[in-house]
Amino acid sequence: MIKIYLDHAATTPVDRDVLTAAMPYFGSDFYNPSSLHAAGQKASRAVESARLACAEAIGAKLEGIYFTSGGTEAVNWALKCAPTADRSHIVVSAIEHDSVLACADKLRAEYDVDIVEPNADGIITPDALRAVIRDDTAIVCVMTVNNIVGTIQPIKELTEVAHEVGALMFTDAVQAVNACDIDVAETGVDMLCVSAHKFYGMKGAGFLYVDPRTKISPFIDGGGQERGMRSGTLNVPAIVAMAKAITAAKTERKANAEHIAQVSLEFLSALKYGTPVAMNSPKIDDIVSVVFDGVNGGRLAVALSMAGVYCSVGSACSAGSAVPPATLTAMGVENADCVLRFSFGKKTTVAQAVAAAQTINVVVSRLVKTAEPKDVSA
Amino acid sequence: MIKIYLDHAATTPVDRDVLTAAMPYFGSDFYNPSSLHAAGQKASRAVESARLACAEAIGAKLEGIYFTSGGTEAVNWALKCAPTADRSHIVVSAIEHDSVLACADKLRAEYDVDIVEPNADGIITPDALRAVIRDDTAIVCVMTVNNIVGTIQPIKELTEVAHEVGALMFTDAVQAVNACDIDVAETGVDMLCVSAHKFYGMKGAGFLYVDPRTKISPFIDGGGQERGMRSGTLNVPAIVAMAKAITAAKTERKANAEHIAQVSLEFLSALKYGTPVAMNSPKIDDIVSVVFDGVNGGRLAVALSMAGVYCSVGSACSAGSAVPPATLTAMGVENADCVLRFSFGKKTTVAQAVAAAQTINVVVSRLVKTAEPKDVSA
Repeated sequence: MIKIYLDHAATTPVDRDVLTAAMPYFGSDFYNPSSLHAAGQKASRAVESARLACAEAIGAKLEGIYFTSGGTEAVNWALKCAPTADRSHIVVSAIEHDSVLACADKLRAEYDVDIVEPNADGIITPDALRAVIRDDTAIVCVMTVNNIVGTIQPIKELTEVAHEVGALMFTDAVQAVNACDIDVAETGVDMLCVSAHKFYGMKGAGFLYVDPRTKISPFIDGGGQERGMRSGTLNVPAIVAMAKAITAAKTERKANAEHIAQVSLEFLSALKYGTPVAMNSPKIDDIVSVVFDGVNGGRLAVALSMAGVYCSVGSACSAGSAVPPATLTAMGVENADCVLRFSFGKKTTVAQAVAAAQTINVVVSRLVKTAEPKDVSA
Repeated sequence: MIKIYLDHAATTPVDRDVLTAAMPYFGSDFYNPSSLHAAGQKASRAVESARLACAEAIGAKLEGIYFTSGGTEAVNWALKCAPTADRSHIVVSAIEHDSVLACADKLRAEYDVDIVEPNADGIITPDALRAVIRDDTAIVCVMTVNNIVGTIQPIKELTEVAHEVGALMFTDAVQAVNACDIDVAETGVDMLCVSAHKFYGMKGAGFLYVDPRTKISPFIDGGGQERGMRSGTLNVPAIVAMAKAITAAKTERKANAEHIAQVSLEFLSALKYGTPVAMNSPKIDDIVSVVFDGVNGGRLAVALSMAGVYCSVGSACSAGSAVPPATLTAMGVENADCVLRFSFGKKTTVAQAVAAAQTINVVVSRLVKTAEPKDVSA
């Protein structure tokens, strides 16, 4: 059986070059970058060189980059430890990753938390934010690219709205690195996070960017690594790998985007059933969510897995959940429990995408004898 | 110049077998274990198999193991999120790693925090704990093996004292895995943490053991991995590597301990200067701290690094600090700023240890023209 992986939004394989760059730090250069001896300092230089690459990849200053164990830690840090002064209000969007929504729930014990809803196209508009933001809003959190439907949010405009009332803007850019130019100087965001395993780096590494003027408190206390802001031995191989991966993502972005646009187009053309979501919005082509009316998404995903096509009903992080992704219900997508997410990678071929679509056609028609084929001439 | 690494307490290289076990999970089996498709479930099985190995290595039940990004995160989690009911008192020892001491400092905002001091041999005695523990003590935290002088603490007896008043016992076993049998069923501790890169695993992975009867709260919220207790994509390769490494540590423990005892003995025999600390205590041979009267430790460490011998003035995590390690001052070690820590690994040879000692002899005699050679016949 041919296996086709269309779940790159869940995780990506480590690029060969990226792995090669990391390998010495497991072996010959395994040292602790906090050690003051020459061996440790060699590891430290590798970390600092990686920090520079990460900063350059997002248009940030070097001192704004703090390495973390991944996106979820960075989200927890940003939302739980950003300076809120005497402000008592936090705004998060309804289409955030579970890590943001779960933190927002925790923060309700201390703050008023408002949820800003997307429009039917899956976009958080500046007007929608304006309708809920307050003079005492401390933090606004809207992701750069939605992880379920792939919509690109107007981060620069939303940041302006946040800054009008003196709130900090935090954006989860975990799903954005492969497809979008990221420039914190251009958008003006105060905090931004990424996760290396989403862009062909290793699991276990990410970073939180914090504008140097923003005085965040540490989330993980200890030996004082990362200038006292994030303690714990630095994960040198994964950090070196992340720097290589984010630099490659930037270099390859245009070519990969063009390729994936083609893959996505051919996939949707070959699909006989289903209605893709948010296709008229500004979005990345890497992620496509499709409603298969009358077919339970979980059941379809299992059947597709057995047929060798790997996709998901939502984010991997909430894969065990019985409820549809919050993004879909917030957008008012009908039959949100009949949605599957397909996400393409830079090595996904058109042939794979078409073969997957053909498999989906067979499986869907088998699951729903009553399914009406769409008008293929349309 | 021959380079000799005597800083294994700071970090260890990844074992070749351990790296080999992890490699598929960067490439062919790179999937997200939270994904429900067959590929994700294969990764999930690898994680669960690793969990079983980790549990078995410390005599724990499977459901007590929660994977973290390392020791420092686990310490933060245990100390900040363990259930304290209405209790308002926490006890930590004076010889803890900086991660514990830093968390204890943070906790002073909410709790009375008492520090239990070691005796002159670097041991926290049950009587010393009894003198500070209270009926409202929520948590007692004493490390299994001290990271500066290598003393082995009487964890079982200390746990009994903690349990007499209904307090939870947490032990940082980060430095213990290579040298000591760890058995949570035997000692009765409620929480215990380890860090893979200290025992020939990868940086970026560790675990917190929590007795299943202890209802700890999550520290990192999000997608609900680790049965809702620790969110964030699981670092599959590092987790698989950690399981392999902790199993190897257990299997090789006796042989490695015998070898390292020999290495340590020959090292100290060849050393013409200095007085080792805590040599009459129950201790592991892997770590030796030596006072070089009249020679600043930091200066000596730098000179030794230039001569190709890599050691440290304390833990790597506090390497940038100008003050001597808390362990030494708490033990009342005179000239604590004249102490270097040497830590041996399973691949350190006797020849390397002797060569290092000879280099140290030369460098010390050069730094302190007035240094008196010790009586080598003693």
